[in-house]
Amino acid sequence: MSDADSTPGSYVTPGQEYTRDTNYIEDRITRDAVDGWPVEAGRYRLVAARACPWANRSVISRRLLGLEDAISLGLPGPTHDARSWTFDLDPDGVDPVLGIERLQEAFFARTPGYARGITVPAIVDVPSGKVVTNNFPQITLDFATEWTAFHRDGAPDLYPEHLRDEIDDVSEVVFRDVNNGVYRAGFAGSQGSYERAYSRLFDRLDWLEERLSTQRFLVGDTITEADIRLFTTLARFDAVYHGHFKCNRNKLIEMPALWAYARDLFQTPGFGDTIDFDQIKKHYYIVHSDINPTGIVPAGPDPSGWLTPHDRDDLGGRPFGDGTPPAPPRQGEEVPPLLAA
Amino acid sequence: MSDADSTPGSYVTPGQEYTRDTNYIEDRITRDAVDGWPVEAGRYRLVAARACPWANRSVISRRLLGLEDAISLGLPGPTHDARSWTFDLDPDGVDPVLGIERLQEAFFARTPGYARGITVPAIVDVPSGKVVTNNFPQITLDFATEWTAFHRDGAPDLYPEHLRDEIDDVSEVVFRDVNNGVYRAGFAGSQGSYERAYSRLFDRLDWLEERLSTQRFLVGDTITEADIRLFTTLARFDAVYHGHFKCNRNKLIEMPALWAYARDLFQTPGFGDTIDFDQIKKHYYIVHSDINPTGIVPAGPDPSGWLTPHDRDDLGGRPFGDGTPPAPPRQGEEVPPLLAA
Repeated sequence: MSDADSTPGSYVTPGQEYTRDTNYIEDRITRDAVDGWPVEAGRYRLVAARACPWANRSVISRRLLGLEDAISLGLPGPTHDARSWTFDLDPDGVDPVLGIERLQEAFFARTPGYARGITVPAIVDVPSGKVVTNNFPQITLDFATEWTAFHRDGAPDLYPEHLRDEIDDVSEVVFRDVNNGVYRAGFAGSQGSYERAYSRLFDRLDWLEERLSTQRFLVGDTITEADIRLFTTLARFDAVYHGHFKCNRNKLIEMPALWAYARDLFQTPGFGDTIDFDQIKKHYYIVHSDINPTGIVPAGPDPSGWLTPHDRDDLGGRPFGDGTPPAPPRQGEEVPPLLAA
Repeated sequence: MSDADSTPGSYVTPGQEYTRDTNYIEDRITRDAVDGWPVEAGRYRLVAARACPWANRSVISRRLLGLEDAISLGLPGPTHDARSWTFDLDPDGVDPVLGIERLQEAFFARTPGYARGITVPAIVDVPSGKVVTNNFPQITLDFATEWTAFHRDGAPDLYPEHLRDEIDDVSEVVFRDVNNGVYRAGFAGSQGSYERAYSRLFDRLDWLEERLSTQRFLVGDTITEADIRLFTTLARFDAVYHGHFKCNRNKLIEMPALWAYARDLFQTPGFGDTIDFDQIKKHYYIVHSDINPTGIVPAGPDPSGWLTPHDRDDLGGRPFGDGTPPAPPRQGEEVPPLLAA
């Protein structure tokens, strides 16, 4: 996702609260093709920048479920201008499958002059070049429930029927106070709106800290959609939100259960192997030029702690339930090693 | 001190390293009045904002030595414009002793049109209203060595003769890499100059961490000038430098010896009772508008850790040598309690 509006680098509106535009292209890709888009291997391309927490969810979900063969992955670079994410990491700056330089082109193919945010994750129909959906909360749910025919052997059930209500409830407050809460703090246009977002964020993190002190995962005893959604924010917390968004009551590493929980997931195949701290930091610190006009990207924090033992196994839980962890990322989809050689 | 130049809020010069202007009014107040300024109780006023680390040194030194009766204290507010620190905390915005609204007036009384930085600490000759000196490294040394006739009973020797070379040597590298190093990181105009400052800062902090693992104080076994100089930077590290200046390899609280050392000093009368985190944060986050254009002041970090046990006594050392701790701050010079009720 990106919250670019028409002014480059303009994210904060003085005197105002930050309100996320949650109007997306909401078509779904389903078995019954109710919106005209059937589940079909090889037909769609997931465009998902490493930097973006909302896109990161879909990349993790694709990895855990083993959808790499069914849905290809396009990776825009970490920075973008006010108009669009761009494929500046690809040879000649062109996505090799879609043949476009700017993600905006796929939105325009769908709706000429498309005026809302050009956001990731976006799923593009390769034959027509049109964006099918950028409705990120639905994308991962559909990966889990509609794409089952293409799941790998041993794929976990990320959205188990009997836990859906609880997953939805937890996800709702985590979105409001944490996933989006950090943006409400960072893009606040007044001291008051910042402090309200800060309080709600840390109250919710305290609630999560307590919940995760006695259970290994957020809902049930296996990894679910709820964990994926929390993880992508936690992974960015100390690297970006703590300083850049002023979410600085404490670092993640100062909350023992949450930090061990985050490390547990990070060290689980499919999570940490999607995280590129360099791209994450570049994205926020360069794109939000009204918060960080110098464009200097912090050298810290030291990420080595992510690899330290977490001891969460002591709480029980079966990360993949009756399933198994995914194989390593495929060639061309690896992230750089966490620690420089 | 303040590094305001002629453009309000302009501290970063794109493409350039930050270089501190170290040209001050260098008169000294001495027993022999070599510069025309004799040591004399009641004659001078120390102007020292709570926010400023360089001014903070002189406030701590004055407290430890018990110079409150001899030298009065004027306290400008935490923020200032490009021209001057102002007495906005005083009734009607006027310093009750000097009768001025802006510190600039005392610099102009000394030198009409004074064109360099209007910085704190500054010592003002009350009868003439003229700034005598704003040469901060010399001010505290002279408090320790020239003002001895007015030291309280039990005042420590903050600059013992037999340790002066070592204190000077340590202070020099600490100034370069730490005290001023954080500014070189925060005001860097290029990624390269930022990263050089960051590396030197954390290399030096690692060096200090090791040194302070086996000795309670920086030089010798008592509190000296060297400790005062390091302390005022450490006190601001997690509150400001970590986020605002991007000195974020780790927080101070992640370096066990340095953090315990800082707490030891903070809990020593004369140190922590000069620290006002609210003023400190407001100063940096509001004044440096080219680094933090939104002017939002972070609500964190949680300062409660400053009051936790430090166990540094185990290393031995005698904080005040043959002397004693100072009495509590005098009425009107107290800082707000660390933890809101």
